[in-house]
Amino acid sequence: DTSDFGMSLVSSLKAFNSAGKLATWLVVPLDFAHYISVAALSGFRFHHAEGDTATMVLWMRPNEPSRIPPFATHQVGVGGLVVRGGPDDNPEDPHVLVIREAGRNYTNFKLPGGLCDVAEDFGDAAVREVREETGVEAEFSRILTMRHQHGMQFGRSDIYCIALLRATSVDVAIDTNELEDARWMKLSEFRENSPHEMVEHAIQAATGEGGAVGLQEKELKSVVPGRVPYKLYYATSGAIAK
Amino acid sequence: DTSDFGMSLVSSLKAFNSAGKLATWLVVPLDFAHYISVAALSGFRFHHAEGDTATMVLWMRPNEPSRIPPFATHQVGVGGLVVRGGPDDNPEDPHVLVIREAGRNYTNFKLPGGLCDVAEDFGDAAVREVREETGVEAEFSRILTMRHQHGMQFGRSDIYCIALLRATSVDVAIDTNELEDARWMKLSEFRENSPHEMVEHAIQAATGEGGAVGLQEKELKSVVPGRVPYKLYYATSGAIAK
Repeated sequence: DTSDFGMSLVSSLKAFNSAGKLATWLVVPLDFAHYISVAALSGFRFHHAEGDTATMVLWMRPNEPSRIPPFATHQVGVGGLVVRGGPDDNPEDPHVLVIREAGRNYTNFKLPGGLCDVAEDFGDAAVREVREETGVEAEFSRILTMRHQHGMQFGRSDIYCIALLRATSVDVAIDTNELEDARWMKLSEFRENSPHEMVEHAIQAATGEGGAVGLQEKELKSVVPGRVPYKLYYATSGAIAK
Repeated sequence: DTSDFGMSLVSSLKAFNSAGKLATWLVVPLDFAHYISVAALSGFRFHHAEGDTATMVLWMRPNEPSRIPPFATHQVGVGGLVVRGGPDDNPEDPHVLVIREAGRNYTNFKLPGGLCDVAEDFGDAAVREVREETGVEAEFSRILTMRHQHGMQFGRSDIYCIALLRATSVDVAIDTNELEDARWMKLSEFRENSPHEMVEHAIQAATGEGGAVGLQEKELKSVVPGRVPYKLYYATSGAIAK
């Protein structure tokens, strides 16, 4: 059936071309992967693929620069600066939750965290990763810092935010396959041992030093009818929010 | 040659399995797309694809949850809040650069901007998009706000930052295929007409109202040997930076 498909593709492309179409998309299920070579002969290239589906595209105006929208370019991670802040905790020097990964040469304590799933908000991802890694329950407060890094996995770029979380439970339980250690540490002690300027800036925003406390979250309605609400993160100062 | 490839794949997988490998990756050039169906028979699925290459993956331990790292989940856009701030401009009510897109029902003036390329920093993308859309040259100052939105193109999520830029040229030149209009407008006038809470928060951060001025950029060295430096964005207040 590949020759039937090939002939039907060629005649469709002629019709699309006459109709002035700018691009033709072709969604190929894995069960029909033998169509990919046929489509390639007509000039189709991969746009993206995932699981059981490849999406191919052909830009129909070879003399004009392609205006085909690019696929995803970034992965997004989030770390949690989790403060205990219970009645037994000192607000001037609270405890923060730190982890040490198993089987890494890099042995410093670091913040728990991980990658956002598709369609997962920063705060939800931070709370989930903290729970999965340490067993501690927490609530999202605000975004403290953001990092932008290139040339990461699969040649993509990476955004990493540090979120301030307030713990709602205390007991730590780790999976020893993943972590070597997780514990509550005095903020002053973590700060003395933290090798990361990024983490130090996050701590400054968490404590409001210098007057800046990071980015507050607000849910806004989309102006596009039918689209789900989205999250806005906007700068606040110590004078506005704690 | 597909049957040769199929037999060689099966025996390789047996060996990888015995060696305790967790996952097997297969990079298939478009010229060898006829191998995709063969690999699918052994359980390979698409991980990602782009241009002339599909990357397939097989998780080797069906009884354990897959730990295959996900491909990119986000696209990242940036808008420029461009202030003129020249000697002829009033610092109390500066001019900002606004555009109106061609062929859209949404007829309000908005900020120029567009998508970050792979490996492009926020500020560079904002400066480039402003130049491409309006002909105005500008320099990056700082990030004002960030938005996180789900269910966008190809089911991916979207991060959009508004960057404060200082114009270094004044003349506006537009491509009338893309834009209906672009002009300098008094900030007070734009503000009266802006329907977007997100833009209003960005303006507040740009003017330092309430004491918060957004996220300042700093270049940091990676702790991983050989990896390029990255950009940190950290909260600053009006007291620290303007």
